[in-house]
Amino acid sequence: MQLAMIGLGRMGANIVRRLMRDGHDCVVYDVNADAVQALVAEGATGADSMADLASKLEAPRAIWMMVPASLTGKVADEVAAVLDEGDILIDGGNSNYRDDVRRAKTFRERGIHYVDVGTSGGVFGLDRGYCLMVGGPDEAVQRIEPVLRTIAPGVGEIERTPGRTGDLTPEEQGYLHCGPSGAGHFVKMVHNGIEYGIMASIAEGLNLLHNADAGVREAEHSAEIAPLEEPEFYQFPIDTSKVAELWRRGSVISSWLLDLTAAALAENPQLDGLAGRVSDSGEGRWTVKAAVDVGVPVPVLAASLFERFASRGEDHFANQVLSAMRLQFGGHQELPAGDVLEAGARKAESD
Amino acid sequence: MQLAMIGLGRMGANIVRRLMRDGHDCVVYDVNADAVQALVAEGATGADSMADLASKLEAPRAIWMMVPASLTGKVADEVAAVLDEGDILIDGGNSNYRDDVRRAKTFRERGIHYVDVGTSGGVFGLDRGYCLMVGGPDEAVQRIEPVLRTIAPGVGEIERTPGRTGDLTPEEQGYLHCGPSGAGHFVKMVHNGIEYGIMASIAEGLNLLHNADAGVREAEHSAEIAPLEEPEFYQFPIDTSKVAELWRRGSVISSWLLDLTAAALAENPQLDGLAGRVSDSGEGRWTVKAAVDVGVPVPVLAASLFERFASRGEDHFANQVLSAMRLQFGGHQELPAGDVLEAGARKAESD
Amino acid sequence: MQLAMIGLGRMGANIVRRLMRDGHDCVVYDVNADAVQALVAEGATGADSMADLASKLEAPRAIWMMVPASLTGKVADEVAAVLDEGDILIDGGNSNYRDDVRRAKTFRERGIHYVDVGTSGGVFGLDRGYCLMVGGPDEAVQRIEPVLRTIAPGVGEIERTPGRTGDLTPEEQGYLHCGPSGAGHFVKMVHNGIEYGIMASIAEGLNLLHNADAGVREAEHSAEIAPLEEPEFYQFPIDTSKVAELWRRGSVISSWLLDLTAAALAENPQLDGLAGRVSDSGEGRWTVKAAVDVGVPVPVLAASLFERFASRGEDHFANQVLSAMRLQFGGHQELPAGDVLEAGARKAESD
Amino acid sequence: MQLAMIGLGRMGANIVRRLMRDGHDCVVYDVNADAVQALVAEGATGADSMADLASKLEAPRAIWMMVPASLTGKVADEVAAVLDEGDILIDGGNSNYRDDVRRAKTFRERGIHYVDVGTSGGVFGLDRGYCLMVGGPDEAVQRIEPVLRTIAPGVGEIERTPGRTGDLTPEEQGYLHCGPSGAGHFVKMVHNGIEYGIMASIAEGLNLLHNADAGVREAEHSAEIAPLEEPEFYQFPIDTSKVAELWRRGSVISSWLLDLTAAALAENPQLDGLAGRVSDSGEGRWTVKAAVDVGVPVPVLAASLFERFASRGEDHFANQVLSAMRLQFGGHQELPAGDVLEAGARKAESD
Repeated sequence: MQLAMIGLGRMGANIVRRLMRDGHDCVVYDVNADAVQALVAEGATGADSMADLASKLEAPRAIWMMVPASLTGKVADEVAAVLDEGDILIDGGNSNYRDDVRRAKTFRERGIHYVDVGTSGGVFGLDRGYCLMVGGPDEAVQRIEPVLRTIAPGVGEIERTPGRTGDLTPEEQGYLHCGPSGAGHFVKMVHNGIEYGIMASIAEGLNLLHNADAGVREAEHSAEIAPLEEPEFYQFPIDTSKVAELWRRGSVISSWLLDLTAAALAENPQLDGLAGRVSDSGEGRWTVKAAVDVGVPVPVLAASLFERFASRGEDHFANQVLSAMRLQFGGHQELPAGDVLEAGARKAESD
Repeated sequence: MQLAMIGLGRMGANIVRRLMRDGHDCVVYDVNADAVQALVAEGATGADSMADLASKLEAPRAIWMMVPASLTGKVADEVAAVLDEGDILIDGGNSNYRDDVRRAKTFRERGIHYVDVGTSGGVFGLDRGYCLMVGGPDEAVQRIEPVLRTIAPGVGEIERTPGRTGDLTPEEQGYLHCGPSGAGHFVKMVHNGIEYGIMASIAEGLNLLHNADAGVREAEHSAEIAPLEEPEFYQFPIDTSKVAELWRRGSVISSWLLDLTAAALAENPQLDGLAGRVSDSGEGRWTVKAAVDVGVPVPVLAASLFERFASRGEDHFANQVLSAMRLQFGGHQELPAGDVLEAGARKAESD
Repeated sequence: MQLAMIGLGRMGANIVRRLMRDGHDCVVYDVNADAVQALVAEGATGADSMADLASKLEAPRAIWMMVPASLTGKVADEVAAVLDEGDILIDGGNSNYRDDVRRAKTFRERGIHYVDVGTSGGVFGLDRGYCLMVGGPDEAVQRIEPVLRTIAPGVGEIERTPGRTGDLTPEEQGYLHCGPSGAGHFVKMVHNGIEYGIMASIAEGLNLLHNADAGVREAEHSAEIAPLEEPEFYQFPIDTSKVAELWRRGSVISSWLLDLTAAALAENPQLDGLAGRVSDSGEGRWTVKAAVDVGVPVPVLAASLFERFASRGEDHFANQVLSAMRLQFGGHQELPAGDVLEAGARKAESD
Repeated sequence: MQLAMIGLGRMGANIVRRLMRDGHDCVVYDVNADAVQALVAEGATGADSMADLASKLEAPRAIWMMVPASLTGKVADEVAAVLDEGDILIDGGNSNYRDDVRRAKTFRERGIHYVDVGTSGGVFGLDRGYCLMVGGPDEAVQRIEPVLRTIAPGVGEIERTPGRTGDLTPEEQGYLHCGPSGAGHFVKMVHNGIEYGIMASIAEGLNLLHNADAGVREAEHSAEIAPLEEPEFYQFPIDTSKVAELWRRGSVISSWLLDLTAAALAENPQLDGLAGRVSDSGEGRWTVKAAVDVGVPVPVLAASLFERFASRGEDHFANQVLSAMRLQFGGHQELPAGDVLEAGARKAESD
């Protein structure tokens, strides 16, 4: 079928390529004319404005936006200005599902179908396909199913889930109509919330392995903050890059995120040059806020988010307050690394 | 090579089968004679006592114990009584790595090599192979490498990690000599700690999806504990069994644990009959204690452990204390489900 | 000075009493005429409608609303209808500070000053005074300072903070102009967030003490979920009601919440009759959401909130998912309490 | 009565002073002769060796050790060498209760009573008294009750807990025989665990207040990690030193730790010079480990401990792993502070 793509960054461009490989007809637009030309060279039809784009599409149109979340509202309004009743506007970016709920209502009043698609797959999606979480009205989602099926990974080599028989369902092919407008990005939001938790689980575990030789280091540098009580049990110089690779095979925690971890550690076993200031995008935050709203406990997902905040020093004032309290009640001075002996001595006199 | 197996439960028996398939010679023993006979029928050599087992092995012997952690110490002593200097005793069970450190020392004094092997794979291991995390002296681990290689999954169909070239390393074949005695079970322990975190991440996320229709239910049952503030954003009746299946394809969180989740939900979409009292084995606990010992923050792994405790009601007295405090400072009565109106009214007067 | 009070529940009525005791002139209104009569009998001027109330006040008026948060918006609009430019409308309830920001803007356009007051003190406030966290325009807050000073606890018998000299500041008397509109309820919100954390800290600690005899119970009932590894270290039958009382004197954690805990346990040492279903009001939730918005890590405050959710069973589906996964990968059946032996035996074969 | 004190650091010396003020007879010893002389000048009897100390005490002796936890074992053995059957040895330091359990058993075999006393009070104890948590055999604890009563704070000006009538119990006077050997330090350990949780609650809350102006700063520095979604709700320039002072009066969270916070912020409102590297002593760690042992969920106490670890950078490798994963799956580069624009733009293309 025919689909227009607005926003030809890596993800937008790769989705277009994946569609064209499967025989779909793509009309493309981006503020960056070079990005348009690159895809025209590969067989797409280029447009040099929203109006031009609209004119090159057969009604009812289907237009997929793949732009930064901060621009989605603005771009959606611009596109809508050139659309007609019955057209379908798809937001494939990382929007907050609340914006979908609001936008869908506005566009519905104008007769335009609004479909939100949470898209997962990152840089590997061109070949691997993109997992698509879709929200919106039944009619519109059905109409764009041909492109969803192409963009999605399909069944691939993944073994069928035991107990599933008969025709393949959409979810087995990597796309799913999750519910009304907003449901797609809601499910994608939770997906990312889970992703934070899994990433943190792996990172915390590897950090423990990385410090499994604390008993050896203890012996070398005799002054440590709190003396390790049983150094004989922490004498393991573990190579985390080998362990991550090992766990890819036959372990319970084998996963794509572990594959990436193994790849990262294979490239850079000591993780040299990484400061460990971990960014977070909106989805992890929205997940925690949604859980708080509906009263669902998410201690693990929240802890993984807060670790990221702390990695960037956002815990600083809190830590200063703690040090300041300790100074008050026990005369505990903050200690520079390496000067802990006196602290140990002072210890018995406090709290 | 020749290997003896003591303990012919599901895992021990399947390891023997996997070894025999690959041409190894297995001598087997279990207190349950039927278990021995079953494997003899498949080609193993049976033994009817420890002494008999020892007599059927060529020196230097290699004996693998696969018994419940609570019995390992006792069985190890019984086996050791029939071993000679230079023999290798392997603990493939779920021992605490601290016991390995202690036992290895004792056996070393008697000239017996002690090797600890953390084994992951569960019921799928017979065909999938078992991920093997090995600790112990170099000489002994090298000697048993042929059986490790067979028991492990091998490279399988898993894509090679980018950046790795040349001969396949042991970890790429699913087994790894992680370090001195105890290192194998230490790495297995952390593996399980991570497993808890990943499982909790998925479970919390699905629970949020399960409650994404809170705004609809709100309308139906007007009295809720804390009234949902923006019910219009929680109108999604999401089918978690479909979403779990969807995420298996192309998503960032695709993983073996997600595969299992999808299988569980395919079988039983409403999870009928499950009380949600979640057990924990020792490894998750040991992981948190080890992290506390060496001063490594593991908020996510710890939270996933504590959720399990709470699922079994171990938070009960704490919750009673909270209710009791609330009664004191605000005259807040505990509310039976469904009777919250008056509480709302009382709300303005407190705290 | 003259102050009107709308909403004569326990807190509104007690504030009026506290004001009258100090010579202020109070005009009171409530939809419940009996509540009005009760205070008239104690010296207040009664009103039987908003209009009546307005007519009994000298311009510029000062009106304090003390109504459930869910009614504040409606009542504020009704009051505003009878107010004139220059009048002051005070919200002393438990509003979300975001509503203050919005309402203040609306009322400012009509020339009415809007002041938000977070009020802490509970049932003890009549005698102990109420801690007042105030937000709003300087002019209005200054004008109502005489009533704030009376409602607040004053210096009382609390020792002056070391380093503070000279005239007593407002905060030393128990009231503070925290910032522009919304700042009062923002600070109150965070106060309650901290309250949740402190309550949880005490409750978790007491729960641990309550279970310090786990090693004794272990011996009695031999089958436990995970066998206690070192029962000899958990032989303490601790009386938590005595410990709570003890800690009131000279300990680092002495606090008003501990006083309440001691009182609760003195009344009911086994906490009989409490189900431990812990409610939460909005503030704890808003605190976590605000922290997420500004990127401040609050793992402790969030964990204390999630514990409350879980105490009410909101973790149920997540726990079912965990049990379902365990069933899949290890054939682990959920265990009824008391039947754990076989599980222990099965343990060696899994994960 | 007569009591010997070994270890004349601040706490040991102040306890001696408090005892002498109340008419007790104190014999004192320390490796530092000056410390001995200082107390001799105040009326104590000095000793210049363990043997000398023993000779100056009437049988049956009572000896209180107040030495750093790391030295307690060694000093206890030295003291025991000069003791006779029926003597009482008291450990008032910060020992791990497990050491008490072990030591008490050893000393019991030699006929010496061992009493463990958890002591809280810090630098304020001389005047305020020390909260005493006592473990040990009934006979010995009864015999030393006169000194316990003196060292403890007594009833002071603290209001009696409602519901308590009749004679004052020991716990109302600030000391309590909590149970058998180890119970004293066990209760003290949990006390400190709670202390960590309360401190963290206050610190996290104040950090949120400290950042309540994020919306103002946002406008100033336009590039932030994750753009604040609703800056209009974070416009509060809150003075945390004033708020901490305010909450001391009439609020639900008034507490001694809040008093200390207010004092710290009064001295140094911006907490200049504090790096926020927060130490932890053993008790917080032991609390979490004990809770894990007995299966009691302590998410709040554990989170407060892990925050301290992270404040000292112990989360570093975990954070590097997270950054490394992000690099892999989305091509996300780590961002230096201040260079976030491009990240925002890249955002739509990922995950």
